[in-house]
Amino acid sequence: MATPVSSTSPQSWATGGPPVGPETLEVLHRWWRAANYLSVGQIYLLDDPLLREPLTVDDVKPRLLGHWGTTPGLNFLYAHLNRMIRDRQQSTLYVTGPGHGGPGLVANAYLDGTYSEVYSDITEDSEGLRRLFRQFSFPGGIPSHVAPETPGSIHEGGELGYSLSHAYGAAFDNPDLLVAAVIGDGEAETGPLATSWHSNKFVHPLNDGVVLPILHLNGYKIANPTVLARIPDSELLDLMRGYGHKPHEFVAGFDDESPLSYHARFAELLDTVMDEIAEIKARAAAGDESRPTWPMIIFRTPKGWTCPPVIDGKQVEGSWRAHQVPLASARDTKEHLATLEQWMRSYRPQELFDADGRVEADIRALAPEGPLRMSDNPHANGGMLLHDLRLPDFRDFAVDVPVPGGSIAEAPRVLGEWLTEVIRRNPHNFRIFGPDETASNRLQAVFEVTDKQWDAEFLDPQVDEHLARAGRVMEMLSEHQCQGWLEGYLLTGRHGLFNCYEAFIHIVDSMFNQHAKWLKVTREIPWRRPIASLNYLLSSHVWRQDHNGFSHQDPGFIDHVINKKAEIVRVYLPPDANTLLSTYDHCLRSRDYVNVVVSGKQPAPNFLTMDQAVAHCTRGLGIWEWAGNEAPGEDPDVVLGCAGDVPTLEVLAAADILRRELPQLRVRVINVVDLMRLQDAKEHPHGLSDRDFDTLFTTDKPVVFAYHGYPWLIHRLTYRRAGHSNIHVRGYKEEGTTTTPFDMVMLNDLDRFHLVIDVIDQVPSLRSRAAGLRQRMMDARLEAREYTREHGEDLPSVREWVWPDAGETATEGAGPMYDATAATGGDNE
Amino acid sequence: MATPVSSTSPQSWATGGPPVGPETLEVLHRWWRAANYLSVGQIYLLDDPLLREPLTVDDVKPRLLGHWGTTPGLNFLYAHLNRMIRDRQQSTLYVTGPGHGGPGLVANAYLDGTYSEVYSDITEDSEGLRRLFRQFSFPGGIPSHVAPETPGSIHEGGELGYSLSHAYGAAFDNPDLLVAAVIGDGEAETGPLATSWHSNKFVHPLNDGVVLPILHLNGYKIANPTVLARIPDSELLDLMRGYGHKPHEFVAGFDDESPLSYHARFAELLDTVMDEIAEIKARAAAGDESRPTWPMIIFRTPKGWTCPPVIDGKQVEGSWRAHQVPLASARDTKEHLATLEQWMRSYRPQELFDADGRVEADIRALAPEGPLRMSDNPHANGGMLLHDLRLPDFRDFAVDVPVPGGSIAEAPRVLGEWLTEVIRRNPHNFRIFGPDETASNRLQAVFEVTDKQWDAEFLDPQVDEHLARAGRVMEMLSEHQCQGWLEGYLLTGRHGLFNCYEAFIHIVDSMFNQHAKWLKVTREIPWRRPIASLNYLLSSHVWRQDHNGFSHQDPGFIDHVINKKAEIVRVYLPPDANTLLSTYDHCLRSRDYVNVVVSGKQPAPNFLTMDQAVAHCTRGLGIWEWAGNEAPGEDPDVVLGCAGDVPTLEVLAAADILRRELPQLRVRVINVVDLMRLQDAKEHPHGLSDRDFDTLFTTDKPVVFAYHGYPWLIHRLTYRRAGHSNIHVRGYKEEGTTTTPFDMVMLNDLDRFHLVIDVIDQVPSLRSRAAGLRQRMMDARLEAREYTREHGEDLPSVREWVWPDAGETATEGAGPMYDATAATGGDNE
Repeated sequence: MATPVSSTSPQSWATGGPPVGPETLEVLHRWWRAANYLSVGQIYLLDDPLLREPLTVDDVKPRLLGHWGTTPGLNFLYAHLNRMIRDRQQSTLYVTGPGHGGPGLVANAYLDGTYSEVYSDITEDSEGLRRLFRQFSFPGGIPSHVAPETPGSIHEGGELGYSLSHAYGAAFDNPDLLVAAVIGDGEAETGPLATSWHSNKFVHPLNDGVVLPILHLNGYKIANPTVLARIPDSELLDLMRGYGHKPHEFVAGFDDESPLSYHARFAELLDTVMDEIAEIKARAAAGDESRPTWPMIIFRTPKGWTCPPVIDGKQVEGSWRAHQVPLASARDTKEHLATLEQWMRSYRPQELFDADGRVEADIRALAPEGPLRMSDNPHANGGMLLHDLRLPDFRDFAVDVPVPGGSIAEAPRVLGEWLTEVIRRNPHNFRIFGPDETASNRLQAVFEVTDKQWDAEFLDPQVDEHLARAGRVMEMLSEHQCQGWLEGYLLTGRHGLFNCYEAFIHIVDSMFNQHAKWLKVTREIPWRRPIASLNYLLSSHVWRQDHNGFSHQDPGFIDHVINKKAEIVRVYLPPDANTLLSTYDHCLRSRDYVNVVVSGKQPAPNFLTMDQAVAHCTRGLGIWEWAGNEAPGEDPDVVLGCAGDVPTLEVLAAADILRRELPQLRVRVINVVDLMRLQDAKEHPHGLSDRDFDTLFTTDKPVVFAYHGYPWLIHRLTYRRAGHSNIHVRGYKEEGTTTTPFDMVMLNDLDRFHLVIDVIDQVPSLRSRAAGLRQRMMDARLEAREYTREHGEDLPSVREWVWPDAGETATEGAGPMYDATAATGGDNE
Repeated sequence: MATPVSSTSPQSWATGGPPVGPETLEVLHRWWRAANYLSVGQIYLLDDPLLREPLTVDDVKPRLLGHWGTTPGLNFLYAHLNRMIRDRQQSTLYVTGPGHGGPGLVANAYLDGTYSEVYSDITEDSEGLRRLFRQFSFPGGIPSHVAPETPGSIHEGGELGYSLSHAYGAAFDNPDLLVAAVIGDGEAETGPLATSWHSNKFVHPLNDGVVLPILHLNGYKIANPTVLARIPDSELLDLMRGYGHKPHEFVAGFDDESPLSYHARFAELLDTVMDEIAEIKARAAAGDESRPTWPMIIFRTPKGWTCPPVIDGKQVEGSWRAHQVPLASARDTKEHLATLEQWMRSYRPQELFDADGRVEADIRALAPEGPLRMSDNPHANGGMLLHDLRLPDFRDFAVDVPVPGGSIAEAPRVLGEWLTEVIRRNPHNFRIFGPDETASNRLQAVFEVTDKQWDAEFLDPQVDEHLARAGRVMEMLSEHQCQGWLEGYLLTGRHGLFNCYEAFIHIVDSMFNQHAKWLKVTREIPWRRPIASLNYLLSSHVWRQDHNGFSHQDPGFIDHVINKKAEIVRVYLPPDANTLLSTYDHCLRSRDYVNVVVSGKQPAPNFLTMDQAVAHCTRGLGIWEWAGNEAPGEDPDVVLGCAGDVPTLEVLAAADILRRELPQLRVRVINVVDLMRLQDAKEHPHGLSDRDFDTLFTTDKPVVFAYHGYPWLIHRLTYRRAGHSNIHVRGYKEEGTTTTPFDMVMLNDLDRFHLVIDVIDQVPSLRSRAAGLRQRMMDARLEAREYTREHGEDLPSVREWVWPDAGETATEGAGPMYDATAATGGDNE
């Protein structure tokens, strides 16, 4: 791979290009034939890649895998974009929505030379061709889809729906980049794709690059026609206009038009479109602030274009039957084998490759040079372009913590102040994404230095607060869009974070899956450089959704995430503001991870000074000696574990009760920031050794563990530990709607009173000795519940509880810990 | 609740209604004022519900929760729909996309009398009003959103995006039902909503009901304007036309127009729209088969309409500041308290309620009678309308299994034959949903009796196979749409199943969450009748995605599902065709569950006769004596557990090797169909008692467990068991792309050879004794891998292995068990 394209290429966005003469049209057709030939070859052939001999059964793969249907269209577009790039020197990224067309993208990367540069064993000769064909969807070879292994790709496309979001993510802050986003008409039926057209209201015509959507309307999915291919043309045009685009239609392949004629038409169309884009860029440069109507192309061609039209009496080309492998039984009958040979020879490979199997020079010359080749575009290997963020020292943003619990803060608000400085120092490669909740999630300080980017209509600035044509904050009420934009932004070498309600981050479960898989695979590909991690901030979490109710309560994203490869996923539950700062500094410096950070947004006590926070986060978990009452040199009687801010608060309140009521009981309090520390070192790189774990949690003492999420996750993480059977976990159990915070923790038995009961139940010596205390705890719960039913808010003694040492010094932020009004004020969904 | 509305109401879909006179307009306005008053009252008041006294701080709730912004618009529409229903006797379901408008829907249900019928303590007098207000978003009360507790609702709306899909699901097979679907303009930005507009190409104008989408364009979300409110009017109209609708615009509340004037305009518009619908219905009845252009309404009004326009100098009405509680500090300052009082009195409650607090008779009379009231519409309490399916005896569809492994079948293909008969016998209340994969998932037999419903353009019937204007199979390439349609269909009292790729069912993780939560809550609401279960069939599962690669491999939906309430979720992994039949018969009979059934679609051996299958499924798990070699009356030396079809095959192949190589080793084979049986009886209603579990799995012998999904799930389910530390699980570990089935199981150490190695490693007496066998097993793995690298398919001895007793009788279905070509043939995505 080569050095980045200059972002000030003088040729960018100039109108007009050289006319496309007949020789070029001929070469366009030759490239297309060569790419189609190589695509078919990958699907079918084991040997004799250039058909020097008559095709035999042994030349054909035993398992025919891959997808032909979308491939010829992808190849056609690739050829024409090559021509345009060559003529205009326009840096262009190719996003393949129909990711099943893997053979096509590999074929094009081979034709322009990138493939052999990246994979030196796939040489540019007959033997290289043989290997190219053989490896495709073959054991030990490459996947059948566009994948991390495919040069030039940032987008897998196995799971459909995200091509346009990814394309816009790539375009943000790349003002000279064109992103040609091919959208399959199958993909176009998905929800995420259907809303992603509106991305054109979130792109800045000068600061950002240009996305050119190309709707690849080949008419069919696996077994059905597509919706957009079966509505009247006028409706389709209305739809595209309604999405804010200027649609250009291109139709070919359904009649006897000569190839040179349709190539001429498409080349002209592409130049028209590029000129329109250049004019928009020029108008914007001249100060025009109206929202541009960006062009898009409707590319209507037959599915499986150029394959046998009819097989066994049934229409194949131009039908869903061309979706995958049109001649699945090529080895079974002589007729089918002959049909395959005839099909392959129809591309006249002898005219496209020389005697050594090298692609003819005129074809190669259609491609641009070096990193202008789409397969070699450095934006598609974002790690090449990645710069470290200039991070302000998070210690400078620390909250003061005179004693544990001695001050109160909304942790994400503190984080927001640090992020403000991050944005100030990194104005071009860091963005914050979120569905309408950045201020609600308490990151509003960032609006001192930036705005929410928006290119639709503006009204009164008093109402359209912090809304501007350019800004670092991207908000659209679509978690799919936030995730897709951020992925595209990261994959092209930038940094960012996604703040979201914890319950609704499940909306992008499957997108997370695909991104985690992408990262996992890229780690095994030497030429793929590491990219910035995907950082989540889930600050409207399960325990503070008492007012929004049951539908907003779900802490299961953590469970979902940790099914993925241990080297990719990290989960952090910082208990207070300083630990959140330290955690996020780490996250923004990390590479190739998915970091999930859960931190509540309501006023809550700060426990650790910044120095303590750094040490605690570095350890990932640790004993809070000030909270327990251990005897030096002795094991405790009971361990109170906690992970998550609300569980930590309840555990401390329980420890306070225990210290007062049962002063002779030796209690150890352990807080866990880095959840993966609980797992075995063999299972996760952050995992504790058994020795460390046993030393902390003991092997024989009861552990009462208060956890943020579903309780069984703690069991899953610790089931191999010696003392596992002593661990008793409290967490969220899908016990539904209540409307005060403490009522909610009580409903799930995670409250301080029940934790004390749990300790009494688990420590054998307490069972009779503490029977009175046990009953008082039950009474306290009843009293707390009764109070909420009567007054609609939590008992003052509960919500105003502070850690005893902190009573006198808790001056900063006057709010109580379970703030009765904090949930209100327009901040929740 | 009352008896169902007749579906042959003579009034349905007639054009023309009585003119709306000035008295009616006045009543419309009075209803709206009353509904708005009751909505504000719920958000703010603890006491003095009719403001008989001056408002005091003590009358105001301490925590102000709920959402005002969307509520007045919802109330306006409800009032007008009431008038239309009364005049036309048109059964109408109201779907509240902006589910945050909970107070509005409760207010309307109270005004029409339904609320007091359902909740008898909320009486129709001052005391009832006090309770109505107090309970709203109050501890022990009702949620702030439209929820299962809300009469007339099938749609929570806490998580946005599914209102239109739910509405269409409700309309299918309800030809006389109107579904008024209010879509928030925030919700309209989500992906699922953006594609769900295309549902109008999947509805039949005669057989199905009518969805009337009402886009509630109030302009703002939590903190931002909405996209659709900030594009030019012409673009919005193009968009709606592009979606295939005829848009009607209504704008009110932005100027000084008198209420009676805008009420008159909207009443007229609604009559126009209803007439258009009636004309479409009439044309369809007359044989017109062209796709109708159904009307929709763009309803543009200020957010928070009628609340204080400005508070503290900032615009509130008509801005995002009205989203939640406009006067969050009503208790804090005298001015704000006065503003609240003034706002509430602006509705002039004394004119709307009589001295006893009863709503005035003229207002009540605006509502239709009985079940024509939208809050009392029986379709919103689908269990009332639910009929058991007429199920054919699944035993009649059994495959012949002369000896275990003695025949081969594609299990879903067998299921498809039974489903064909289910469809034949239940032509109006059973549908199959899937994203373009029903045939790929081997259910194609159903196309003998039905088609895929489609109302877009048709081409050559040779290409448009099984596509028709009416049919029982619903296919659109959107998992969100499939799930949303099915949910709407089930919630209104019908039956169905959703077939999907296992990896991509994660796309609807969050929708599953919301449906499971809905079911959990409805079980606690006496007047909500049980509905049919939501049934998944995941037949393109992780182990047969070797060809599609890593992106298609994810068995984690099971992990996701079992985080929800145990009484709701069921997971089945039938190992063969007869067990799949027996399982699905059970699923289609069940109520209020989510049933996840995973069953591969490739040719695989049948192990159990139908009698055995029924017994095995009834037990949920059991010893397969024929597969082990236990000595009577003795514990085995090792237990081989398996759950899932591929793991079962590998365990049997391992058992075969062990029997041959180590005949003295006592092996027990246990197959698990019902995964929840592994859990503790205290955790899940299907859970085994410890005694049963210990008897089966022993408490001290090694258990090597081959599991379909992520291995740690088995640990999570069994961590409380006495013998848990002896359980060694093999499953999917995110080891990625290969391209043969056996290579794939090898990569995850789930293959027969590795299972034998696991047994050797776990049984202490074998460690030295079986060292030679251990090495041969490692060699066998290497050989198998080498073969795939050379030949591109699995070793014949691996893929043609059959259970030894079956060698002679395996005649049915000639295919090998890992079929080299089964993955091909256009059947995969």
